[in-house]
Amino acid sequence: MQDYPAITIQNIHTIRQNIPLVHNITNYVVMNTTANALLSVGASPVMAHAVEEVEEMVELASALVINIGTLSDKWIEAMLKAGKSARQNKKPVVLDPVGAGATGLRTDTAVKILHEAQPTIVRGNASEILALAQSELKTRGVDSTTSSDTAVEAARALARKTGSTVTISGKVDYIISQDSETVVGVNNGTPMMGKITGTGCMSTAITGAFAAVNQNALQAAVAGMVVMGVAGEMAGEQANAPGSFQTALLDALYQVNEQEINARAKIQ
Amino acid sequence: MQDYPAITIQNIHTIRQNIPLVHNITNYVVMNTTANALLSVGASPVMAHAVEEVEEMVELASALVINIGTLSDKWIEAMLKAGKSARQNKKPVVLDPVGAGATGLRTDTAVKILHEAQPTIVRGNASEILALAQSELKTRGVDSTTSSDTAVEAARALARKTGSTVTISGKVDYIISQDSETVVGVNNGTPMMGKITGTGCMSTAITGAFAAVNQNALQAAVAGMVVMGVAGEMAGEQANAPGSFQTALLDALYQVNEQEINARAKIQ
Amino acid sequence: MQDYPAITIQNIHTIRQNIPLVHNITNYVVMNTTANALLSVGASPVMAHAVEEVEEMVELASALVINIGTLSDKWIEAMLKAGKSARQNKKPVVLDPVGAGATGLRTDTAVKILHEAQPTIVRGNASEILALAQSELKTRGVDSTTSSDTAVEAARALARKTGSTVTISGKVDYIISQDSETVVGVNNGTPMMGKITGTGCMSTAITGAFAAVNQNALQAAVAGMVVMGVAGEMAGEQANAPGSFQTALLDALYQVNEQEINARAKIQ
Repeated sequence: MQDYPAITIQNIHTIRQNIPLVHNITNYVVMNTTANALLSVGASPVMAHAVEEVEEMVELASALVINIGTLSDKWIEAMLKAGKSARQNKKPVVLDPVGAGATGLRTDTAVKILHEAQPTIVRGNASEILALAQSELKTRGVDSTTSSDTAVEAARALARKTGSTVTISGKVDYIISQDSETVVGVNNGTPMMGKITGTGCMSTAITGAFAAVNQNALQAAVAGMVVMGVAGEMAGEQANAPGSFQTALLDALYQVNEQEINARAKIQ
Repeated sequence: MQDYPAITIQNIHTIRQNIPLVHNITNYVVMNTTANALLSVGASPVMAHAVEEVEEMVELASALVINIGTLSDKWIEAMLKAGKSARQNKKPVVLDPVGAGATGLRTDTAVKILHEAQPTIVRGNASEILALAQSELKTRGVDSTTSSDTAVEAARALARKTGSTVTISGKVDYIISQDSETVVGVNNGTPMMGKITGTGCMSTAITGAFAAVNQNALQAAVAGMVVMGVAGEMAGEQANAPGSFQTALLDALYQVNEQEINARAKIQ
Repeated sequence: MQDYPAITIQNIHTIRQNIPLVHNITNYVVMNTTANALLSVGASPVMAHAVEEVEEMVELASALVINIGTLSDKWIEAMLKAGKSARQNKKPVVLDPVGAGATGLRTDTAVKILHEAQPTIVRGNASEILALAQSELKTRGVDSTTSSDTAVEAARALARKTGSTVTISGKVDYIISQDSETVVGVNNGTPMMGKITGTGCMSTAITGAFAAVNQNALQAAVAGMVVMGVAGEMAGEQANAPGSFQTALLDALYQVNEQEINARAKIQ
């Protein structure tokens, strides 16, 4: 196994030095939170969804994050256009298939983006990843009703078919390499992360920042989950209710460093 | 009078046990805040507004909350479609007519939703409720310029005409039963609630969570305002400026319990 | 030089007494934050972007703030309609050309608004102001890559051409009078303001609140930047990480007063 903590530390250093521009087409609920998460971790966020400008913005950016949490026609068009453009420009694309499996529109849109943008990394909860793999299971809103363990086999099949690195977030996060041969488990985080909205979306956005500075998708995906989980633990020691926790989480993403990552990262 | 504190306590217990999915079609300003308020209180929020998916989402959800705070064509279409679908599926619908009376578009949209979705509960400030009842008075933006007391008569007329339970929020909140015979006053809260955006919208969302677990609309509407007001008071003891207050309010919605409700609820 | 601190103190007093309604057509990322900033400073925010209602809302409001941070067709149409209506009704218009220079859509839209709404005040970072003046320079997302000093000459040319008062925000903020003869420097603020999203947008919204109570655009623009910078410094003494800082900043906008402004305002 590679030395993921050391790679994560090196990558976060690069993010803070290079301040990569991360282009997000994301949902209304978490736009502010994910922009702040990217700023805290050291990257530079930009949100832009107009069909007329996404291609230009992709050219300026070092990574593209597509999150389907709140959809409509025009946004889907922009997501596909931006995704294809990023692919052509060899910019990494990270997809968050929020609610895939819950409605046909979400499953279909996520599948379309998989085909047309060929994301470098897909990050979802177990239900969403299962839905993408099976296009069958009905998820319960945007929550996960399936444990991340049971979704690993589906994720491996998905990785093999699509060539994407796949992250399943849950109590333990699993990151599956694009050839489906390597499965890395990240056992960080704290239950309070499920009591505020957007921690999944924040993980995806931060994964985008790591993909912007590391061409090895598996390493970038692991680093994203390690930093998010470690920051969650740090915040959990500062706050025991959701409002304070959200504040502490943004603080922790800014404060997370070599020492914290070395002390806390639990990688299997 | 019924034992509203006891009912509220029992309902919040059920919310935290069953974690009902509350589907929100709400305004951009408060999406994050209301999602977090629902999570704090114990429910599971989902935000979805695409015409193509609202009916499917309504089927998965235990309640629908419609908030007209930021409107456009497509959203109005989705609100009406979701509202009708919820009605047909006997799911409770809660309407927040934000800014009704301020512009024709808002008044007209709220009235359309009243007719087509027949909301279980309508929650607004005095101006908004008056505007719905009278379709005359011009409100001042989304603020209330009329005291909640003077709007009670209008609300009773509105309840009689529509069959909706009506909540008027203000210094004292008034909840009017759908037969207009019962008027319950809730005298909780703190002035700082008016110094952050979205406390009204949070009340509406939380009312949706209670409606999801209690078919008695009057009880659910009272419980929503009691929990919001009690949490506001708890937060007001922790914070004396708006930024800190917002954080403390989410904390309090998570911490509110039997003891706090019994000690603080002031119901007339 | 005029006594800007005294004018700022008098204006903030008027805001807190009159509670002017500030109509915002702004981007999704900062809607919540700017609404809360306006409430904290003492004004009353309303967000409304539907083509069908913006003219009515402008009539109710004391100032209009247009922020192009997340664009699409319908929104541009609403911005132009609202802007023209405000102009005809002699209501002050404040424009934030977010990301002008980064994409053609943003530059073109900002220029259209300049022509059709003739904003009272334009507030941007150095790159955005340069882009408007030159329609040439490519900015890096929504960040500033040019120091505010070097943009002063371009801003003077812009002011002369458009008749708008121009604010360039940066380490030192420069406010250029509409006749381009007066340049006021405001040397307040703290680096942490760049680590959360939306501080620029908050400055613009607050400038709108001052424009609502002071017809002298130069004075209003200076007051907006002084209050924002002073509040930033107050918050910086309470918090040393972005999550806490954001909370402390809203607190400080509520707490900023005569004493703080007199002690901290650094005007050149």
